Amino acid sequence: MAEEMNGAESLVRTMIAGGVNVCFTNPGTSEMHFVAALDKVPGMRCVLGLFEGVVTGAADGYYRMLDKPASTLLHLGPGLANGLANLHNAKKASSGIVNIVGEHATYHITYDAPLTSDIEGVARPMSHWVKTSPDSKGIAKDGALAIEAARQTPGQIATLILPADTAWGPADGVAETAAPMAPPKASQEAIKAAAAMLRSGKPATLLMGGAALRQRPLELAGRIAAKTGCGILTEGANTRLERGAGRVQVERIPYVVDRALGVMKAAGDLVLVGAREPVAFFAYPDKPSLLMPKEARSTKLAGTDEDMEAALEALAIELDAMGTAPARIAAPRRPAKPTGAISADKIAAILGATLPEHCIVVDESVTTGREFFPETAGAPPHDWINNRGGSIGYGLPVAIGAAVACPDRKVLAMIGDGSAMYTIQALWTMAREGLDVTVMIFANGSYNILRGELTNVGVRNPGPRAVDMLSLGRPDIDWVAMAKGHGVPARRVEDCEGLAKALDAGLNSGGPNLIQVML
Amino acid sequence: MAEEMNGAESLVRTMIAGGVNVCFTNPGTSEMHFVAALDKVPGMRCVLGLFEGVVTGAADGYYRMLDKPASTLLHLGPGLANGLANLHNAKKASSGIVNIVGEHATYHITYDAPLTSDIEGVARPMSHWVKTSPDSKGIAKDGALAIEAARQTPGQIATLILPADTAWGPADGVAETAAPMAPPKASQEAIKAAAAMLRSGKPATLLMGGAALRQRPLELAGRIAAKTGCGILTEGANTRLERGAGRVQVERIPYVVDRALGVMKAAGDLVLVGAREPVAFFAYPDKPSLLMPKEARSTKLAGTDEDMEAALEALAIELDAMGTAPARIAAPRRPAKPTGAISADKIAAILGATLPEHCIVVDESVTTGREFFPETAGAPPHDWINNRGGSIGYGLPVAIGAAVACPDRKVLAMIGDGSAMYTIQALWTMAREGLDVTVMIFANGSYNILRGELTNVGVRNPGPRAVDMLSLGRPDIDWVAMAKGHGVPARRVEDCEGLAKALDAGLNSGGPNLIQVML
Repeated sequence: MAEEMNGAESLVRTMIAGGVNVCFTNPGTSEMHFVAALDKVPGMRCVLGLFEGVVTGAADGYYRMLDKPASTLLHLGPGLANGLANLHNAKKASSGIVNIVGEHATYHITYDAPLTSDIEGVARPMSHWVKTSPDSKGIAKDGALAIEAARQTPGQIATLILPADTAWGPADGVAETAAPMAPPKASQEAIKAAAAMLRSGKPATLLMGGAALRQRPLELAGRIAAKTGCGILTEGANTRLERGAGRVQVERIPYVVDRALGVMKAAGDLVLVGAREPVAFFAYPDKPSLLMPKEARSTKLAGTDEDMEAALEALAIELDAMGTAPARIAAPRRPAKPTGAISADKIAAILGATLPEHCIVVDESVTTGREFFPETAGAPPHDWINNRGGSIGYGLPVAIGAAVACPDRKVLAMIGDGSAMYTIQALWTMAREGLDVTVMIFANGSYNILRGELTNVGVRNPGPRAVDMLSLGRPDIDWVAMAKGHGVPARRVEDCEGLAKALDAGLNSGGPNLIQVML
Repeated sequence: MAEEMNGAESLVRTMIAGGVNVCFTNPGTSEMHFVAALDKVPGMRCVLGLFEGVVTGAADGYYRMLDKPASTLLHLGPGLANGLANLHNAKKASSGIVNIVGEHATYHITYDAPLTSDIEGVARPMSHWVKTSPDSKGIAKDGALAIEAARQTPGQIATLILPADTAWGPADGVAETAAPMAPPKASQEAIKAAAAMLRSGKPATLLMGGAALRQRPLELAGRIAAKTGCGILTEGANTRLERGAGRVQVERIPYVVDRALGVMKAAGDLVLVGAREPVAFFAYPDKPSLLMPKEARSTKLAGTDEDMEAALEALAIELDAMGTAPARIAAPRRPAKPTGAISADKIAAILGATLPEHCIVVDESVTTGREFFPETAGAPPHDWINNRGGSIGYGLPVAIGAAVACPDRKVLAMIGDGSAMYTIQALWTMAREGLDVTVMIFANGSYNILRGELTNVGVRNPGPRAVDMLSLGRPDIDWVAMAKGHGVPARRVEDCEGLAKALDAGLNSGGPNLIQVML
């Protein structure tokens, strides 16, 4: 076997042995040996995307659900560049990804052929780990190193650049990937400091993020809150929050600065668990960047690189809170379905009335969805995913990855119309893979958030050209036609009755579908 | 005025004064002051794209037609990243572009908000010039420097990073942009060496590229060829080739390596005029990277940074060729329109029979269009644009830029279905701006080029998973629905009669339209 195996095959075998068994691909000539190797080795699921932002975003969604990296296959520097915005989002979400990026044969690079570029330079701003693998005998080992980097706690973006001759040259065999190391425990000092802050008698809040937002650590936080009277908050956007009936409820810090400042004032001192001191999404004239009031202090219980669940348990024991029941959301509490004209509030109620058990909600609803949390808090247990990196176009691809990761769960992707256009090609992959994804497009016909932001940054009376740059009208996007073009069935709804019906039908269809929600 | 002007307005005024009066935009919060300034200053045409690859590709197409930079407006690192692949293509085409990339307020960067990234790092691989402008009083001068960089000969990618407080702070006035310097003349030694090569009696060829492919320098090359018997060739892909009836005909070096080697063997020694020694697009096992035969020599008459037309004139004078008439294509010579089933050959004939005078052909036809040149050579004068950087998804955006640059000319964009998906959002901008662009989508339902490339790189009997990664089927893309979604009228054609009729109708419609050509 070893004498027949080429570098590409040794890499694919190394990846599968290392637990990386899904590859989201958009290949080109320089990746053909990797593609060919996929047929020689059983066990790698390949999912084609027609644009690289779909590919990288899907890998992000996959990690968020399984805490385990998928790989991508990208075509040279420009292919990687097209995937970079969603790698940015994945990096900010601490999602582990192994990017395989093709490169010209090592001896060909000097000729500066059309597709030649500084691939490492393109990779570096959005990667934790970058390496060009210079020969076919070393690529398996480099593949193992990339997997090890991606599987760190928290996950990392590892970009392995694969020159064509490294792929087609003879390999030395398969490399073994070291098992991930358990994350370190938080220090006793950190636990004592957190306990002291919560016992101080002053208002205090657990500010939680990352993997601390899963059911079990939230239970521990709930015990601590019930015992000490502290609050529980999350950052504005979360990688994945386990919420719904029977779980401990948390609130998010609002996006709008003035509202966030109010929430943080009430929050008091902060015990940080996988979160940082909260900062504004953007700077605005005469508004602070740091959202904590001056008098508040913070102490870090555990970071995302530590065992946050163990730290919360240690803190709960320290506070004698393990016997205290947390305040949980009671058994499913669904709002009534509203009727008539569609509004953001009514969408929230319809969601609360409809979300199926174990649903994965991918939220890129931007302005429309700011108030979806309260009405959906009592729905059956579900996961809620947000954009950590702020680059719009993350939602449809992440929905693909979540659906590939969890084929037995339903995915609901809620996307603003402006956001949807950046990675609209995702619809085709949903159709090809028959993914159980219902897409709601909130069609307000504008970059609605920017209308508010114009005012927030101090622009008074914006002129017609400025307003025109924020409008998606002339022509209106026809989302039903757009979905049809990509092979996805779609409906357009103009009232709450239609939306509720379409949502039921979509979620029960078992396959991809799209709802154009007229706002 | 000066005391009221903010940095953004001073930048917009500097740009307009410096001749940059088109801005292709996809803005976000950090760019709102720039957007607001557009209404305060007359003279900047703003064109919105719904994805940044559309924006940067449009700026490329604009430069190719006018030899003058447009600007882009992009949202922080991820927005720039989304535009990077088409900046790569523009860079390889030596198109001058002024990118304005928003950044967080300078004091906000340290807080590592969600959209924070290393913007300079993202910019550098695809830019010649990068600068973050740190304060509102200096931004006008930095804007002038960016324009000067973009207007070099040949054009350059200049990326100016604009922090929000640089945009909203007080300005010091408008800055003046230095007039572009005339490119230097080629040396006498270069002219003598080229003349000696052409007089040697051995086979020799003028290999031309860049701005040497305009009518007047090609006329001079034609005189030299008629006098000395040398050939005229261009690289495989050209920024813009002026061709058609009454002009000097040139051939391109084929993409397929074995065919290219045959052409280069016949070409003999090379006189380089804005071109480099030809190299293979990709490396293949057992095939050379450099396409020149070992015995051939090359000499550089003039590079793209020199006055190539003057160099050709000097060479023609040196060779006493100024009185020799070039071999021109005779008066329009149009093939008959074929009928029946559609094939690549027949499309070529239909194009030859149909191309209107002064049409701008943007060619991203990939495999389908490899043989379009001979049958279209006798069409009335027209321009032919190719992808210099090889990153697919360049064609639809470049068509936008060409149409904005030349509102009195018709644009024909010929796009492979795989390529079209990368920047499909371009259709919407065509509709919004009412651009006179006819889009032909060659719907072969696959990354057809990769099927050949699998064999070329030595993969025998590819398995079903490999083949699946090259197929655009399951589901087939419905291009008529896709166009409708973006507000562009479309037709699907299945035979030559239908194609000829649709092409006539589309080119005469005066606005954007799409033809799904079934292959």
